[in-house]
Amino acid sequence: MARGFMGKILRVDLTAKSVITEEVDEKIARKYLGGKGYGVYLLYQYIKEYAMRGISVKDMDPLGPENPLIFMTGPGTGVPGFPSSGRHHVMALKSPLTGSIGSGNSGGTWGATLKFAGFDGVIFEGASDVPVYLSIVDGKAQLRDAGDLWGKNTFDTTRILKKAVGRKRASVMCISTAGENLVPMAMIMNDDHRALGRAGVGAIMGSKGLKAVVVAGKEKVPYAKMDEFVPVSKRCLEAIENNPVSGEGLPAYGTAVLVNVINTAGSLPYKNWQTSVNPDAEKISGEALAEKYLVKKGSCWGCNIACGRITSVKSGPYQILATEGPEYESLWALGSATAVKDLAAITKANHYCDEFGIDPISVGSTIAAAMELNEKKCIPEDDLQGLDLTFGNAAAMVEAVWRIAHKTGFGKYMAAGSRKLCEFYGHPELSMSVKGLEMPAYDPRGIKGIGLNYATSNRGGCHVTGYTIAPEIVGIPEKLDPLATEGKAQWAKVFQDFTCVVNSTVNCLFTTFALGAGDFAELLSAVTGWDYTDAEILKIGERIYNLERVVMNRLGIDGKDDTLPPRLLNEPLPEGPAKGQVADLDKMLGEYYKLRGWVDGVPTAAKLKELEIEL
Amino acid sequence: MARGFMGKILRVDLTAKSVITEEVDEKIARKYLGGKGYGVYLLYQYIKEYAMRGISVKDMDPLGPENPLIFMTGPGTGVPGFPSSGRHHVMALKSPLTGSIGSGNSGGTWGATLKFAGFDGVIFEGASDVPVYLSIVDGKAQLRDAGDLWGKNTFDTTRILKKAVGRKRASVMCISTAGENLVPMAMIMNDDHRALGRAGVGAIMGSKGLKAVVVAGKEKVPYAKMDEFVPVSKRCLEAIENNPVSGEGLPAYGTAVLVNVINTAGSLPYKNWQTSVNPDAEKISGEALAEKYLVKKGSCWGCNIACGRITSVKSGPYQILATEGPEYESLWALGSATAVKDLAAITKANHYCDEFGIDPISVGSTIAAAMELNEKKCIPEDDLQGLDLTFGNAAAMVEAVWRIAHKTGFGKYMAAGSRKLCEFYGHPELSMSVKGLEMPAYDPRGIKGIGLNYATSNRGGCHVTGYTIAPEIVGIPEKLDPLATEGKAQWAKVFQDFTCVVNSTVNCLFTTFALGAGDFAELLSAVTGWDYTDAEILKIGERIYNLERVVMNRLGIDGKDDTLPPRLLNEPLPEGPAKGQVADLDKMLGEYYKLRGWVDGVPTAAKLKELEIEL
Repeated sequence: MARGFMGKILRVDLTAKSVITEEVDEKIARKYLGGKGYGVYLLYQYIKEYAMRGISVKDMDPLGPENPLIFMTGPGTGVPGFPSSGRHHVMALKSPLTGSIGSGNSGGTWGATLKFAGFDGVIFEGASDVPVYLSIVDGKAQLRDAGDLWGKNTFDTTRILKKAVGRKRASVMCISTAGENLVPMAMIMNDDHRALGRAGVGAIMGSKGLKAVVVAGKEKVPYAKMDEFVPVSKRCLEAIENNPVSGEGLPAYGTAVLVNVINTAGSLPYKNWQTSVNPDAEKISGEALAEKYLVKKGSCWGCNIACGRITSVKSGPYQILATEGPEYESLWALGSATAVKDLAAITKANHYCDEFGIDPISVGSTIAAAMELNEKKCIPEDDLQGLDLTFGNAAAMVEAVWRIAHKTGFGKYMAAGSRKLCEFYGHPELSMSVKGLEMPAYDPRGIKGIGLNYATSNRGGCHVTGYTIAPEIVGIPEKLDPLATEGKAQWAKVFQDFTCVVNSTVNCLFTTFALGAGDFAELLSAVTGWDYTDAEILKIGERIYNLERVVMNRLGIDGKDDTLPPRLLNEPLPEGPAKGQVADLDKMLGEYYKLRGWVDGVPTAAKLKELEIEL
Repeated sequence: MARGFMGKILRVDLTAKSVITEEVDEKIARKYLGGKGYGVYLLYQYIKEYAMRGISVKDMDPLGPENPLIFMTGPGTGVPGFPSSGRHHVMALKSPLTGSIGSGNSGGTWGATLKFAGFDGVIFEGASDVPVYLSIVDGKAQLRDAGDLWGKNTFDTTRILKKAVGRKRASVMCISTAGENLVPMAMIMNDDHRALGRAGVGAIMGSKGLKAVVVAGKEKVPYAKMDEFVPVSKRCLEAIENNPVSGEGLPAYGTAVLVNVINTAGSLPYKNWQTSVNPDAEKISGEALAEKYLVKKGSCWGCNIACGRITSVKSGPYQILATEGPEYESLWALGSATAVKDLAAITKANHYCDEFGIDPISVGSTIAAAMELNEKKCIPEDDLQGLDLTFGNAAAMVEAVWRIAHKTGFGKYMAAGSRKLCEFYGHPELSMSVKGLEMPAYDPRGIKGIGLNYATSNRGGCHVTGYTIAPEIVGIPEKLDPLATEGKAQWAKVFQDFTCVVNSTVNCLFTTFALGAGDFAELLSAVTGWDYTDAEILKIGERIYNLERVVMNRLGIDGKDDTLPPRLLNEPLPEGPAKGQVADLDKMLGEYYKLRGWVDGVPTAAKLKELEIEL
């Protein structure tokens, strides 16, 4: 087996309660790496198998037993000295929130620990009739009864399972209240506060009766060329430390440093994107968080960036003894999108998101959409049940998060996500989502490239599919005019492809502020023993992105879905540095498709052949 | 059939899904009236039946299918002009909170409307395998699927079922989140904010898969002597209106008027009963509530007292658009017992109690016990999961109520009630409960008679079994020295007996500020056509109380359980007008047993014979 991999993947049939071990396919690993790439390859195999069995993936219930749930690490995961590599990736054929592909990436220690336990990945198929969890310790995997764990929240479940395994360095990945309640925006949590956050993968896990996967082990990840790896690793780690973003901004303020930065660029969406200048940004900024509630920094396994924030709100109605975050996206979604300026309330709501396992971006955006629907008198008072959803109402926002996770009161309506909520009340245009996934905290009317990325991102409105904010705002690797459209198609494509590499390696996207494809080629070559070039690395990324698109196409999603909400296309920003601007998607999308070799959102046969994708 | 009754009782076997109609037994109705009396009689019949079938009621699971749940009205219920008679009573063989008898009484419109629908009562047996509700409309009763209702809270369920029945005057009784979650302190709600509050009857209903009972109808209650009834009714209603408590205090401030009164008497328990002088009583008083949050008064069916408070908290973190209460007991339990002085927080917590159907007295008292346990360092930090349970912490109190109803986090531990919580953490003496039922808002160290009533009350620590506060504090029918023990045994006995009459009539205990046994004899005689005397009325009450005691004895509860928490027996009040006092139970209990004709809490054969109780 190639180095960098443990060489083994667990395949768990939850219906039959069987656990078998399969070998990692070396040819696939070379072509797709691990993580997302290997996962997408596996998803496509399901599509082929289902086609033969006459199962239509278009009609498939995302919460039915046919939806596979695949957790994968990559050749970089858990390798000491491989930058920020304590991560893992999840893939599912279909998201209950979007109907598109389910995908997520998480930090913490779980990914690395799975490898120390002897495995590169775990595939879950079917559904259990009783709650179960999977224990993977020192090379042995066992399904166990989780009847007593069902109903327990993230922190409880984590604590109890760590104790049950009896190993200090055990790591627990689990669902909580929202996942059990099949809330379509439920997260899968690991290590208490880390999450596979988007697209409702937690509900898929809940639908399988799978409460948790606990891992512990002491194996070391084998790697090929120690002598080559050490100097490359040293150089890369230093590059990260010397970079102004990964070495200064993120360690000092975490991701929350972006609140003031993006607001200054006039692109911090406010009141469900009615404008993108937030008059109260300062109050909910990373600086304010650091001053008022920060206790100390935290980091994932093997990371020298340490962007995590351990925080505490010591008094008042929103007190929490100890929590993490909120991250930039949470501050924005729970704060700016809803016009809530009470930082303690946002911190509390964010804590609820972790405790009950529910995506703060989708939750906050859905609450913001409900607020706009309500202010426009589109929601009957009876439905609201006393929840006073008006912009800026901190108490209602916090309460709404609870209610969504528990599917209580108006939370039942909101739990479906902003797209279904707005459709239900007759105003689909008020859902600020792409392919049903709520967009994150950057207004593409003020930052054009990110709009192209949102529109073409496979899993829907997502910033971490191709983070063009790096060049457009932060100036890395070079500074672009955020309001320009020229050249953005190329940037979006390259960032999307390169991000596929990072998510398949699997390590952290934040390393890419300092590292490029060349660095990844050198790191991966030293670890795996395969000789990768810069060009091959980017081709692997492009291959993964294209195969993922093929999978989506099979679900019925194509160019018609590569778009943005009408508000971004038609309503100019009313104020700030981007005043008068719209998203200008049509100026970029054609060029993007051309660069991609796609016709109306579908890869051509020639492109697939060029990328050596066999269907 | 005697007048005053509709003559029909529904018997519903939830296991078999059968609904049959039985006639009211006239002989039993004459001897026990309706409501609690008829219910206790039925409970005893179950005990006899179970004995023959070899089922031990001592070992019976209160949440198992053998526990019957009996809803009964009485001959006064729903009769226009019968004072405050929109009530109904519930009885169950065993409470999941206490293991003693389950009993409760509620206002609103449900009881009266059940009679208008053609029935005096409904008996539920067995347990349904799927959620169901019972619809009783115009003499027809049907079990219907409640799959879509399961998971819905009190207000939602009420609204949806009223709409489903399509009758403006329909009334809905239901369980909410806590009942479904089998929380042992869950309430059964009716008419949104009215409740069968104590002893966890909501969990029994939840265990049966019974979500709701909706009633509607237009029948009139037949009564015997219109010519006699009209002048008696007029005189009684006027007496209520001219009485300083039922005609002035309660209409003006509701039950909350008692906060300042009882605090002035040095008997408002504070910080889990560590003292009973609350320095912040004024802030949580009925007067403060009226000034800050009162919108208007409200009343139950056919009531001229109108003690209900419609309230609203319009801003801040604890806002609620519209709610009812909090009542005196809620203000005390959620406020004084926990030392929380934020009236908005208490109002919010009380609203949660109604919304999720959970008893505010037991909830508040259990939170107070948890706060004392925590301040005494008896709870591991891990168990608390960030809930900062310290006296006076309003945010933690509100959060704790949510968590208990939803059985989340530390709420899972607290949901068991104070007795089990304090036992679990090794300090059973910190549970301020009798027979496992948390005591209400009067410290018997400062008001001796109520302590005797708490200790001997059949369902546990309860004030509405024999409300000696009337003479001891309010001076009705005459003023007694609250610190004296002499004569209190007789007062407690008579109040307990008379209250059984009120709960079997069924009308409101508050009428007894103005009406005595003679008035009830006249009212009941005119309605039923049976000639009741004062003495017979009190004998009926005594009969009911004794048969209830027999039922309890069969459950294994007797004199050993007729006691008070050690704090009340041994720790003198540290301050206030009752400084230095303890409860002096031993000075009253012997005399009480003698008056009752009981030996060690068990009625003698002679007493049972005297009361014509046939076992």
